[in-house]
Amino acid sequence: MARKMYTFDELYTIFSEELQKQNFSKSPKELYEPIIYTISQSGKRLRPIFTLMSCDLFDCDIRKALSQAIAIELLHNFTLVHDDIMDEAPMRHGKQTVHVKWNQNLAILAGDTMYALAYRYALNAELDILPVLLQTFNNTALEACEGQQMDINFENKTGVSIDDYLLMIKYKTAVLFGASMRIGALIARAPEKDVHHLYQYGLNIGMAFQLKDDLLDLYGQTSSFGKRKGIDIIEGKRTYLYIMALEKADPETRSKLIDAYRKDHPNPEQKIAEVKRIFDQLNIEEITQQVIEEYLNKSLEHLDQVDRPVENKRVLEQLAKRLMFREK
Amino acid sequence: MARKMYTFDELYTIFSEELQKQNFSKSPKELYEPIIYTISQSGKRLRPIFTLMSCDLFDCDIRKALSQAIAIELLHNFTLVHDDIMDEAPMRHGKQTVHVKWNQNLAILAGDTMYALAYRYALNAELDILPVLLQTFNNTALEACEGQQMDINFENKTGVSIDDYLLMIKYKTAVLFGASMRIGALIARAPEKDVHHLYQYGLNIGMAFQLKDDLLDLYGQTSSFGKRKGIDIIEGKRTYLYIMALEKADPETRSKLIDAYRKDHPNPEQKIAEVKRIFDQLNIEEITQQVIEEYLNKSLEHLDQVDRPVENKRVLEQLAKRLMFREK
Repeated sequence: MARKMYTFDELYTIFSEELQKQNFSKSPKELYEPIIYTISQSGKRLRPIFTLMSCDLFDCDIRKALSQAIAIELLHNFTLVHDDIMDEAPMRHGKQTVHVKWNQNLAILAGDTMYALAYRYALNAELDILPVLLQTFNNTALEACEGQQMDINFENKTGVSIDDYLLMIKYKTAVLFGASMRIGALIARAPEKDVHHLYQYGLNIGMAFQLKDDLLDLYGQTSSFGKRKGIDIIEGKRTYLYIMALEKADPETRSKLIDAYRKDHPNPEQKIAEVKRIFDQLNIEEITQQVIEEYLNKSLEHLDQVDRPVENKRVLEQLAKRLMFREK
Repeated sequence: MARKMYTFDELYTIFSEELQKQNFSKSPKELYEPIIYTISQSGKRLRPIFTLMSCDLFDCDIRKALSQAIAIELLHNFTLVHDDIMDEAPMRHGKQTVHVKWNQNLAILAGDTMYALAYRYALNAELDILPVLLQTFNNTALEACEGQQMDINFENKTGVSIDDYLLMIKYKTAVLFGASMRIGALIARAPEKDVHHLYQYGLNIGMAFQLKDDLLDLYGQTSSFGKRKGIDIIEGKRTYLYIMALEKADPETRSKLIDAYRKDHPNPEQKIAEVKRIFDQLNIEEITQQVIEEYLNKSLEHLDQVDRPVENKRVLEQLAKRLMFREK
């Protein structure tokens, strides 16, 4: 008989309690205050929960994966703090970003410190799997940096292709979802084949997750993550929607879109309306939703290949679907 | 008969050649260009050479320590690139800093990437010593962040004591010298007692090295590291010299010094002259040189305790003395 698996909400509670127990109130306090501020914000904790779920899938005690889950959450938060500086983002999860609430130098240094703290937690593993865990962790951090650079490059580049864009979000976002699954499976000493499929499950969810984020910016029912609707358009961000629209449009419509999307557009509301009219005309919402479902299906196919009872895998199946069909 | 030890110059050549062989020309090139620029600059390579010397001291093949030596140099360079942003430093080693030559966002991201690359090299070690090597490496990175924050705190703080200052330079600078020695000794499987003494040797040299840097800013024969003479004074930096002078001065002289040191002083040359007059009057050069020699002596005492033939330790003894009696 299949064992009862932890639910998402149970793991959320377990992880949050564990994170709260950690003592980040160290000296100098000026450095640790923004770290505590950042990690106390109640994000979705998706990545660490992926690690715990992956570990749980193989009947391994999830407490063995808590340290790695904290490492992953710290790594993720380090990238957010530094990315927010680069993107000049004023808000995150409805709260001021670190470089705004304090200052930019502190955001740089607090980010660096979170990165070092992440490794401290990542080091806490049994010796035989330590090298492969740390390689996974470190390669993912490196890829996240490369992805962020690709994203920055896009800002001043014309002719970004759909493939360029997909590679960027793979590195910037999706690999960490893959790594989170992989690390949980490695801790559980899962067979290599299953580790591979769970990585792919996470990676494909990560792709779909980012595309869904792009979609919800304009087509979500309410504002998402404390963002205003259409904020990507106002900021002139190269999103999947915009790049796909450029690719689908005839020359005349393309010119109109580029003109509407320009950064010095005087009227934000009008800008959103103009761009949305073109997106709607080109069926961008449906096209994007379809690509998201393709990634979702790929992720479920990989989950299917994992050699565990179907009932045990249900929680991962449901999570994937819930993330993809969310409306905010 | 004692084996011939590698000299500093031999190790410099071996390390430089090894560093050159590494392929950092990766994609996206915008990210890796400033990394190549940073690590190609011919700094003194002190820290990686410390690691190789420490390894060599125990008759261990220094090639076993090359990967860790590269990791240490990358870690050091990551901190320089980020510190230069925070300090708004325009030049380093006589060349433009990364945030000036490119831009600040790239300097943040290139720094992060060097940090991740550093761990990639640090991971390359035999399994039995991997945890202790990585703990040393990671704790040192964390302490460097904390030291940088202490340094930032000093900028807007009155009443920084000599003890505050010494703790700051210990974390910001000296621990990496200690760790460099420790890592080389660990790779060579040196006895625990010797590892301890070599850490202390490095730590005390690191303290003396930073104090010497402070001293040379004003009292060096020529400009040091591409810096103008008295640059610390012009920038109003809290150095050992300044803090010691505040401590030694009578109330009247202290007021004069604080006034001369103020950041909005209109005339840089006059500022330096005024401050130097007070330093000279208070014997700050001699006092600082004496403290440097105390740290040097402490480092040599620890070296003395290391259970290796005196002839083998000579290269480390000479290096310590050379660093302390340098004139630039």
